[in-house]
Amino acid sequence: MYNKRMQNLGSNRSVIRELFEYGKIMASKVGKENVFDFSIGNPNVPAPSSVKESLLKYIEYPDSTVIHGYTSAQGDAGVRKTISDHIKDAFGANVSPDFIYCTCGAAASLTISILALSEPGDNFIVFAPFFPEYKVFIENAGAEARIVSAGEKCSLNLNELKEKIDSHTKGVILNSPNNPSGVVFSEQQIKELTKILTEKSAEYSNHIFLIADEPYREIAYDGIKVPYLMNYYKDTIVCYSYSKALSLPGERIGYIAVNPEAYEAQNIYYAVCGAGRSQGYVCAPSLFQRVIADNINATGDIEQYKKNRDLLYNSLVEYGYDCVKPQGAFYLFVKAPEADANAFSNKAKQLGLLLVPSDTFGVKGYVRISYCVSYDMIKRSLPKFKELMEQYK
Amino acid sequence: MYNKRMQNLGSNRSVIRELFEYGKIMASKVGKENVFDFSIGNPNVPAPSSVKESLLKYIEYPDSTVIHGYTSAQGDAGVRKTISDHIKDAFGANVSPDFIYCTCGAAASLTISILALSEPGDNFIVFAPFFPEYKVFIENAGAEARIVSAGEKCSLNLNELKEKIDSHTKGVILNSPNNPSGVVFSEQQIKELTKILTEKSAEYSNHIFLIADEPYREIAYDGIKVPYLMNYYKDTIVCYSYSKALSLPGERIGYIAVNPEAYEAQNIYYAVCGAGRSQGYVCAPSLFQRVIADNINATGDIEQYKKNRDLLYNSLVEYGYDCVKPQGAFYLFVKAPEADANAFSNKAKQLGLLLVPSDTFGVKGYVRISYCVSYDMIKRSLPKFKELMEQYK
Repeated sequence: MYNKRMQNLGSNRSVIRELFEYGKIMASKVGKENVFDFSIGNPNVPAPSSVKESLLKYIEYPDSTVIHGYTSAQGDAGVRKTISDHIKDAFGANVSPDFIYCTCGAAASLTISILALSEPGDNFIVFAPFFPEYKVFIENAGAEARIVSAGEKCSLNLNELKEKIDSHTKGVILNSPNNPSGVVFSEQQIKELTKILTEKSAEYSNHIFLIADEPYREIAYDGIKVPYLMNYYKDTIVCYSYSKALSLPGERIGYIAVNPEAYEAQNIYYAVCGAGRSQGYVCAPSLFQRVIADNINATGDIEQYKKNRDLLYNSLVEYGYDCVKPQGAFYLFVKAPEADANAFSNKAKQLGLLLVPSDTFGVKGYVRISYCVSYDMIKRSLPKFKELMEQYK
Repeated sequence: MYNKRMQNLGSNRSVIRELFEYGKIMASKVGKENVFDFSIGNPNVPAPSSVKESLLKYIEYPDSTVIHGYTSAQGDAGVRKTISDHIKDAFGANVSPDFIYCTCGAAASLTISILALSEPGDNFIVFAPFFPEYKVFIENAGAEARIVSAGEKCSLNLNELKEKIDSHTKGVILNSPNNPSGVVFSEQQIKELTKILTEKSAEYSNHIFLIADEPYREIAYDGIKVPYLMNYYKDTIVCYSYSKALSLPGERIGYIAVNPEAYEAQNIYYAVCGAGRSQGYVCAPSLFQRVIADNINATGDIEQYKKNRDLLYNSLVEYGYDCVKPQGAFYLFVKAPEADANAFSNKAKQLGLLLVPSDTFGVKGYVRISYCVSYDMIKRSLPKFKELMEQYK
């Protein structure tokens, strides 16, 4: 009577959401100050004041039908030019407004890109640990998700990648800075990865696309550079979102950039437009298209996330936790002091600490801590983390 | 190397868009005042001033992370309550916030609802004349679109409906007030329609869903009442959008309301949530969720569309055109004075009149005139319509 796969997707909340909802109930019972909710990646740093200034400017625009009207399906032409100019300036990549497609955020960028590329029987490769929705988005396109297990310290396991690629591999998704590990993949690994993709594409007379999922691009610490993948590999599609760096996750605004030098780039771009149309994405929200164009070089105060990282990482290491040191994003990936991450997460819950067990990220035995929360909450949570570790000594 | 169906959808603009783009080029050549662009359904009436007031209120809210942050996937709980209260007050239908799902506009509402219901081999029935994207959305879900040809004066051809329903019919889409005809289907026709659906559901031991696509609900003239379908048929899903009545088409904001009394309503609602998730709709734009809740009873100045309708309809009838009198929406459906609507549209083009030929709406021999344009432009266009008709005398 209805689509069972969709019913299943809609009735089973993700582990992250489940924990988040639990936290809200717990807070109402034991008091907000006794719940340390590290479950969700909702930025706590406010949007920069320049976002508010843009909003005010457009709201005062005399003709509201221009500001709130349909833009072209790809996005306003001026907005697309601003985005492509920014990509050229910031990363030296030769893009064009005619290969930019504005979207309702990163999830839309991904579903659209994957559907645009997919033919029956295709598979897409994902590196663990990974954002769990990748599987949902790949299956939405009727394709298969193939998981490459995590390398040491959550690096790319390139030997396993070689084994997993076959003649039906249409794309590889790379997410750097990474959710949930906080790792920024090194230029060295990117070069090795793209070499493999080039060789395997040749072996199968194919073009394996690299899908760069980059909502955390601007959130990187210690001056580390996040390689821009188009500069390393022609067959690259960049999926970007303003959710994290501009703190606008609810506004659903991002873009897809198809490398104009990619194989059959024009047809790939058309397929992107068609996949958006097919799924009912008429255009990206018009007011926020203009707002992000005004704020193309702005971000929220990333230093606050760095302060959080330093406090949390240094303290947890001191207490004896084995942590992957985050170079970007706002997640800390911590080895559970017992084999079962769910059991550890449950023990943490008893102390009010909400930590996401890693199983759905494709890795066993870890928890993810989202530190896009107040510095004060982290400070107050530290004795609990200490107490938790003492249970294992 | 890519999805050919998507490439095809992305490279072939709709006839409407094609004409719209042609109009922009023509305007730059012969002057804007000589082009009478009736191609597109982009409201020319501004959003009410209360929309601006809401926007200002939320932008001044001290914590931007609340306003621009993720809401729950279904939409903010308070917003959903406001919507369901409004449906109860305005139409007497017994809905619940737990069966409302906020969306990125009507197109998203439709793709999500259709995907939620679809099982392999299903078909959905559409009444001609219809919004051409219905076919795209139905095929996106892997289902078949079955067209029922138009009845007299664009009424519902219910005899043909009976023949087209079979054991795989999952839903019927009804769009009233109608794009492109402007017709509001009468209560009498709705009763006959729902009687057929009830009988056919029983015959096939099935539940045929009625999908009410209602972006034009508030745009109705002469005090005519648009029947609220949940009050006539239990297995109803309402797809609403604020694009037209609030003049916010670019902001992508609307909702799905599943009738809580529908068969397996809870599972249908879960499937809606799953279909949204699967296609990358994380949540409806957060700022505009709040804005539409504040403006739940507001509309743009509908009287302006009525003035446009009266001038255009009365003048065209006077010149000898055979028109369907619009009772709602902002479209006038006019019989071409020759068999080939495309030839007629081309002749109109020579005079600067951009009228959409009806073939893609599933009816031959008509053109659609979108009169959501300035009264002044309509006035200036009238001599051209007269001149055009004289070519046929």
